[in-house]
Amino acid sequence: MKVGIVGLGLMGGSLGLALQKTKIVSTVSGWDLSEAHKNEALELGLVHEIADISTMKQNCDIVVLAIPVEAIIATLKNDLFDAPSNLTIIDFGSTKRAILDAVPDSIRGNFVAAHPMAGTEYSGPKAAFSSLYDGATVIFCDPELTTDRHAMRAVELFSHIGMKIVFMSAAEHDHHTAIISHLPHAISFSLASGVLQQEERRHIVALGGPTFSGMIRVAKSSPVMWSDIFKQNEDELISAIDMFSDELARLKGLVASKDWQGVGEFMRKARKIREIL
Amino acid sequence: MKVGIVGLGLMGGSLGLALQKTKIVSTVSGWDLSEAHKNEALELGLVHEIADISTMKQNCDIVVLAIPVEAIIATLKNDLFDAPSNLTIIDFGSTKRAILDAVPDSIRGNFVAAHPMAGTEYSGPKAAFSSLYDGATVIFCDPELTTDRHAMRAVELFSHIGMKIVFMSAAEHDHHTAIISHLPHAISFSLASGVLQQEERRHIVALGGPTFSGMIRVAKSSPVMWSDIFKQNEDELISAIDMFSDELARLKGLVASKDWQGVGEFMRKARKIREIL
Repeated sequence: MKVGIVGLGLMGGSLGLALQKTKIVSTVSGWDLSEAHKNEALELGLVHEIADISTMKQNCDIVVLAIPVEAIIATLKNDLFDAPSNLTIIDFGSTKRAILDAVPDSIRGNFVAAHPMAGTEYSGPKAAFSSLYDGATVIFCDPELTTDRHAMRAVELFSHIGMKIVFMSAAEHDHHTAIISHLPHAISFSLASGVLQQEERRHIVALGGPTFSGMIRVAKSSPVMWSDIFKQNEDELISAIDMFSDELARLKGLVASKDWQGVGEFMRKARKIREIL
Repeated sequence: MKVGIVGLGLMGGSLGLALQKTKIVSTVSGWDLSEAHKNEALELGLVHEIADISTMKQNCDIVVLAIPVEAIIATLKNDLFDAPSNLTIIDFGSTKRAILDAVPDSIRGNFVAAHPMAGTEYSGPKAAFSSLYDGATVIFCDPELTTDRHAMRAVELFSHIGMKIVFMSAAEHDHHTAIISHLPHAISFSLASGVLQQEERRHIVALGGPTFSGMIRVAKSSPVMWSDIFKQNEDELISAIDMFSDELARLKGLVASKDWQGVGEFMRKARKIREIL
């Protein structure tokens, strides 16, 4: 099986490394807008070769789009609308409704809308590592609109790199990721932003133990990628921020009214998250 | 040198292990309110022996109080007010003003108000490990009120277990920890609480990747300990929550007005935290 990867950053590069460790893939081709990324990806061995999208379209069995959401939409419309019927097209975009609304009808059966729940705060080819996907979950959206042969190929690929597969509608995906992924990013960016305005470097260094470091880790993520995700999922994100703000205000209210039993109760209920994660 | 540790949970137990690895300590005695913790601490080798506080007061060079803030205050007033002048008393409480206001004058010179910026979301003797303090920072508050011999002893002890020492007033400490440590805990408890109310288990499991898991990690911390900390630092915590809520509202406003350049700029500024942590 030949796989082409468009976008050789953390996600695409790690996929290249992971696929090379499986027995099911013979060749991994890669492409990136950036010349520097292409060179780095070859040097780091993330892919076997560099090839452009029109070459991949002819030679590959699967093309994976590991680029921002807006770039995925443009690539589907401009480069892949006339893909051969035996080409499986998988996207790794972080929001799904906008992409699925934009997939040309001509390739809807080829298309697999996937969101791997994996990543770090780093980006670019040098951030890639072979175990990024191992044990992580991938959400496969609206699978009933993908032709069986393409869906099965995607399932094979995901499972061979160690992923747990969960099926969900795109609307459900965007609703739940707003709460469980995009909201935490908005919180982390806001916490980092507020603390940088309030605090001197020496106090952040002295007091920024594992709690603070852990909470602002994802604020180090790419602003280009994350402003794009916020844009694609604006309405769901705003609802999620409101939900969280109400909850924080409730905790603040318990503190302000010195209801320490209520504060303890709030924490004990929150702590039940231990039973799940 | 003989050290006594009151409270054999994560903090006290880890201190016992770390001290046993240094050459400067001959005996580590321990005590805990809980019979189970005392037995576990001996079984796990966290301390050499169990001894009560009055025995420690006579036999030890240093007594460390690794218990909640309210218990520290009670122990200073009821058990240690008549400590001999050569006993160094160190507390590990997470807020400092209330403790320093309560230290009896008779032992003020013996007393070292310290806050190690180390910890995990786990508690109890089984959570202890010898490297908890290695490379972490400890805040030593109002050092000018500690007699030199006791201050120097504390500095020796902290530096021998690998800690970086930072001096600060108690008021500064409580202000900055509200923003950099207590606020992140309030956020984490609120995020976990909100998500548990909104989301089913299966969605949390499927979508709760490293971002969400990282953000709710400290919501697994002890409600007893954290409601106590919130109580001791109520006013500073409320100001910190207000500061953060304003910042999150500002980000939400940028999203709601579709100012994607503004959102990107917000994220780029927040991301400067990379230069510090």
